[in-house]
Amino acid sequence: MQIAKTIAEIRAFVAEARAGGKTVGLVPTMGALHVGHASLIDAAAGRCDYVVVSIFVNPTQFCPGEDFERYPRPFEKDVRLCEEHGAQAVFAPSPAEMYPRENLSWVTVEKLTAPLCGLSRPGHFRGVTTVCTKLFNIVGADVAFFGQKDAQQATVIRRMAADLNMPLEIVVCPTVREPDGLAVSSRNRYLSPQERKQAPVIYRALRRCAELVDAGRCDTAGIIEQMESVLQEVPALEVEYVSLVDAESLEPVDRVDGRVLAAIAGRLGSTRLIDNIVVDRAAK
Amino acid sequence: MQIAKTIAEIRAFVAEARAGGKTVGLVPTMGALHVGHASLIDAAAGRCDYVVVSIFVNPTQFCPGEDFERYPRPFEKDVRLCEEHGAQAVFAPSPAEMYPRENLSWVTVEKLTAPLCGLSRPGHFRGVTTVCTKLFNIVGADVAFFGQKDAQQATVIRRMAADLNMPLEIVVCPTVREPDGLAVSSRNRYLSPQERKQAPVIYRALRRCAELVDAGRCDTAGIIEQMESVLQEVPALEVEYVSLVDAESLEPVDRVDGRVLAAIAGRLGSTRLIDNIVVDRAAK
Repeated sequence: MQIAKTIAEIRAFVAEARAGGKTVGLVPTMGALHVGHASLIDAAAGRCDYVVVSIFVNPTQFCPGEDFERYPRPFEKDVRLCEEHGAQAVFAPSPAEMYPRENLSWVTVEKLTAPLCGLSRPGHFRGVTTVCTKLFNIVGADVAFFGQKDAQQATVIRRMAADLNMPLEIVVCPTVREPDGLAVSSRNRYLSPQERKQAPVIYRALRRCAELVDAGRCDTAGIIEQMESVLQEVPALEVEYVSLVDAESLEPVDRVDGRVLAAIAGRLGSTRLIDNIVVDRAAK
Repeated sequence: MQIAKTIAEIRAFVAEARAGGKTVGLVPTMGALHVGHASLIDAAAGRCDYVVVSIFVNPTQFCPGEDFERYPRPFEKDVRLCEEHGAQAVFAPSPAEMYPRENLSWVTVEKLTAPLCGLSRPGHFRGVTTVCTKLFNIVGADVAFFGQKDAQQATVIRRMAADLNMPLEIVVCPTVREPDGLAVSSRNRYLSPQERKQAPVIYRALRRCAELVDAGRCDTAGIIEQMESVLQEVPALEVEYVSLVDAESLEPVDRVDGRVLAAIAGRLGSTRLIDNIVVDRAAK
């Protein structure tokens, strides 16, 4: 396992792999790795000869008051997980390595970043797209892997790469869930035992949406109402949004027709949780 | 000479050159090539094995009411100039090839794009940085060449490449001038014979600045006053700005100390002209 703390080091590692004719995969993460990340590394290892996992808690994607400081950083454990799942390198730069001076240059994606999480997290996606651009430029990967759990992020990154002709492929891998349906997330560890028991209500609401669409319902307002009534089973959940949007444009839909993203965000105590599924009425 | 009209074509050409172990240089242009561009191609050919000149009149860097439609497009002549100066390929995509769908993704550079030309051309630099990012990603060059004539653009591009860890070097080449001092520009052809005779007043005002600094003057306000009095020799010149700014941050300076950019913009009839010099008091 090669560990690079600097940009020059990871570029040298990748150049060596390239010189050996290897294809290069990148799994960008903020560390605190779990089975969801492991599934991305597995996908990368199945697809590329040389897999780089970046571990960087990116300050520019946290909004004021968010959990940047307390975000978990179990580095040794993360490195072991990367190795076990077939990564060849970890790139773990410091904030000063990634932002050595005032950052004046930003990559922004319009429209797609406005709804859903964009409403409550101003500047978040700008931080994500900017750091991903930097990581893509640093690593020079052929393929980068993201999780469907962060559906809006995946959509935004895919559009950014296409619009800006970035010379790599974006692969989005399925959400990994706990046995009770809760989407695996680094932030789940913030939940108290009681909150952990309540959290799967989000996935149950999403399942209700899927069942209604399966049963032929397509009226967005009626479906959302039913999803909300599922969420009300846990009064402690402070719902941020329950949305049905076009899976590509992320614009609200009146009727479920084609690929529709059903997405929920909410807070349990101080922990913000998001989850989503894609329903595809046309495919049935 | 290889001519590519599509992204796939130029990528194939460059991949072939790379496979042959060649280094790749890029000279991004909007065509209407002149001796200024020729000097960039010369520099590229002296530095890189395989030189790509992109010719693309980029719609996203023109503001409403600017000369996008009438901007000259003498393609055959441009290709001959590229060939004569040692370029191996021309990349001349259509607007639809470069922007096949609504462009949602933009690269912006804060602060550096606000003063000087940023004041009168809102959105111009966003168009420049975005199309350069696209061209860099498409061509995958080792080095890209820009002219000092567009000093603010060069500063912005250099900062963008550094901030976003773009894997290429930015080289800025000296301004090429007509014998009477007028900076060579594609837009000079818009000038009437009378305006053409008047245009060198801009360079004379810049020379005045250099002479004053050489003579030990360092008070910005006094120097600008004298530059303005030179410009007043041509009442037809509608001055947009006469500025002395820090050559790196582009922030106004009270005193000339270190590397200072002296920059002028103005209109003669319908033609917008810009020019600049760098004075370096510390170097004397």
